[in-house]
Amino acid sequence: MTITAEVAVDRTFEQKLELLAEVAVKVGLGLKPGQELVMTASLDSLALARRITEQAYRAGASLVTTLYADDEATLMRYHFAPEASFDHAATWLYDAMGAAFKSGAARLAIAGSNPALLSNEDPAKVGRANSAVSRAYRPALELITRHAINWTIVAGATPAWAALMFPDDKPDTAIAKVWEAIFQTTRINTPDPVAAWKTHDAALHHRAAYLNEKRFAYLQYRGPGTDFRLGLADDHLWLGGGTTAGNGLYCIPNMPTEEVFTTPHKNRADGTVTATKPLSHQGTMIEGIQVRFAEGRIVEAHASRGQEVLQRLIDTDEGARRLGEVALVPHSSPIAASGMLFLHTLFDENAASHIALGQAYSSCLREGDKLTPEELAAKGANDSLIHVDWMIGSDKLDIDGITSSGSVEPLMRQGEWV
Amino acid sequence: MTITAEVAVDRTFEQKLELLAEVAVKVGLGLKPGQELVMTASLDSLALARRITEQAYRAGASLVTTLYADDEATLMRYHFAPEASFDHAATWLYDAMGAAFKSGAARLAIAGSNPALLSNEDPAKVGRANSAVSRAYRPALELITRHAINWTIVAGATPAWAALMFPDDKPDTAIAKVWEAIFQTTRINTPDPVAAWKTHDAALHHRAAYLNEKRFAYLQYRGPGTDFRLGLADDHLWLGGGTTAGNGLYCIPNMPTEEVFTTPHKNRADGTVTATKPLSHQGTMIEGIQVRFAEGRIVEAHASRGQEVLQRLIDTDEGARRLGEVALVPHSSPIAASGMLFLHTLFDENAASHIALGQAYSSCLREGDKLTPEELAAKGANDSLIHVDWMIGSDKLDIDGITSSGSVEPLMRQGEWV
Repeated sequence: MTITAEVAVDRTFEQKLELLAEVAVKVGLGLKPGQELVMTASLDSLALARRITEQAYRAGASLVTTLYADDEATLMRYHFAPEASFDHAATWLYDAMGAAFKSGAARLAIAGSNPALLSNEDPAKVGRANSAVSRAYRPALELITRHAINWTIVAGATPAWAALMFPDDKPDTAIAKVWEAIFQTTRINTPDPVAAWKTHDAALHHRAAYLNEKRFAYLQYRGPGTDFRLGLADDHLWLGGGTTAGNGLYCIPNMPTEEVFTTPHKNRADGTVTATKPLSHQGTMIEGIQVRFAEGRIVEAHASRGQEVLQRLIDTDEGARRLGEVALVPHSSPIAASGMLFLHTLFDENAASHIALGQAYSSCLREGDKLTPEELAAKGANDSLIHVDWMIGSDKLDIDGITSSGSVEPLMRQGEWV
Repeated sequence: MTITAEVAVDRTFEQKLELLAEVAVKVGLGLKPGQELVMTASLDSLALARRITEQAYRAGASLVTTLYADDEATLMRYHFAPEASFDHAATWLYDAMGAAFKSGAARLAIAGSNPALLSNEDPAKVGRANSAVSRAYRPALELITRHAINWTIVAGATPAWAALMFPDDKPDTAIAKVWEAIFQTTRINTPDPVAAWKTHDAALHHRAAYLNEKRFAYLQYRGPGTDFRLGLADDHLWLGGGTTAGNGLYCIPNMPTEEVFTTPHKNRADGTVTATKPLSHQGTMIEGIQVRFAEGRIVEAHASRGQEVLQRLIDTDEGARRLGEVALVPHSSPIAASGMLFLHTLFDENAASHIALGQAYSSCLREGDKLTPEELAAKGANDSLIHVDWMIGSDKLDIDGITSSGSVEPLMRQGEWV
């Protein structure tokens, strides 16, 4: 299920970029001939966007429209726009994306924008602008989150991202390292990436099916600084890999993806958990996190760095100090194997088993999309404005599954599936 | 009213670009503080788009959204997309632009895309794709053409355009020449470009007001190969320079603009006209055009090169062989003074007096926007699917105005206003 460095395939950068585009269109998106494609990308990802455009047309796309974002233009707004600007969003454009999805378009996002772009801007303005976008984007985003259409996210290396990941390298070296990490973690360095993805996707589905069959009531975590028992939501559903969207097309929404995940019970978490990686939150690094849960709620929270940001985060609302997601990722995942901190959730959440503070996914409950908020809450699904993933896995973590009758089954030992 | 090379102002390229952006936002667009801006640009015009973005925010824009077009992506479609693609357009995106305009946004287009981009592609596909875009864009474009909102078009030099204009120069030299031509013709090389534009705009309005007061029934053209009498539409209105849009904001929709123009009478054109510049039409150059009109209709058409394309053009529909616009431009206009053929209508139509085959502008008739198609036709306004401008002015052209009572007044002598 994982790729090791031993699989040496001799390809040029251009060939790898082309393969990444092909895998994104064929495996990630599952584009249907005649289907329209709406792509979003940073201007820094132009080369990849063009390769994806070509692959989409070769796969039969009727039209590919790319909406480019420009970091420089974004910064100009923060530097020069009037105060009232920050409560405004391009509602017309988000509505248009929704209209495109409803008329049958697929959606591809190239991730990789500068994670620290707004770290020096006024947090109040950033917050207001984000809120305005959230409100404007909600109707279109809802079609994405409930998988009404086929969609995927794939990453492209950008200079700013590379500089953050490899501050000591020259720009060319840094960006080459990020590209190589993307190729490696998205299985582009295998002899047949499309086949590798199909095998990997089947393995994730197999793992989720196994866990769904077992119907564990609790997971028990043991590792350095961690002794933690986490209840799963009633009627929880483990998911992983690709999904058949409402439009009937099969897509794998994240590339890479290594996790199987479900909804924990918001009132059933007890014990101490220690983070195994720093948490990058809105431009701030929170390090050395250790928290104690009692009856699902964080009752103590410490961080060796960024304590105040952590405290503010869990004070967002009542649901912010409870869990909304639990995900299992083996330590041998290609992202973990790279040893890199990517500072992008798309990668970092696939490097280690994790839990997320905040909002639960209704799709991780049986028929969850048909349940009312009250019914979801009754089954243990958490509700919050935030959803922040938080790495707790390592090669020293053991995890057991415990059924409602109390039988115990080892799931992971030293970070690997048993 | 014109700029001569004697006005030497010592500015760097960056300063000129900044000034062009400032003039586009303040004079061209007349952006209102708090107003949203929708910009369209080629990726090749990124530098100018960024300067305009900054100027727009400094002028109080609430949000600037730029929709970038990528020539390479366009070509990929022609090379790889399935046959059915070419009847498809991004209706959702054009609808969104219309929604933005209706919600108060201004509109700025950066012209300068490769005029010959599709010259090697299948003309049938090009035609179908253009038709699909025309249908999709119509509702939003209608808000532009009837000046419901403030809008402007300004040009940015691009490598492909520069290579067409200056095929014998090195790329850097060619693009520098195009930029300098843009700066020169948009009055950026004057000591105070904003003031120069205000003076120029007032002069165009003065000229149009004078012609409207005279209410000429006919124009009489005399020059080499030209002996031509053109009737003006009943209730015709001469326009030129800026206009107050329906949203109350004053804008100058074209930069540069040197013309005053009105609607001729579709049944009143007699005599012979010889073109003074080649006509670039859908990637083909038509040269040495000479046509004879009788009662408004082309009865003979010759071209020394591109005869077949010319013939096909005037055979488009009945209105394609009649006139829909007449424009007067002095030979001393900065565009004519440059001696360059820009291969973009935005420039070339401001280099010489011209006439246009095809569709008339209802705005060039008194209360024309309130008239039915039948009422417009009764006043002499032509109707056609095409509107093709066609240069007939030179430093050897004399034009007289003739009133309905038969009195004759010289308007232009040797290409200059009397």
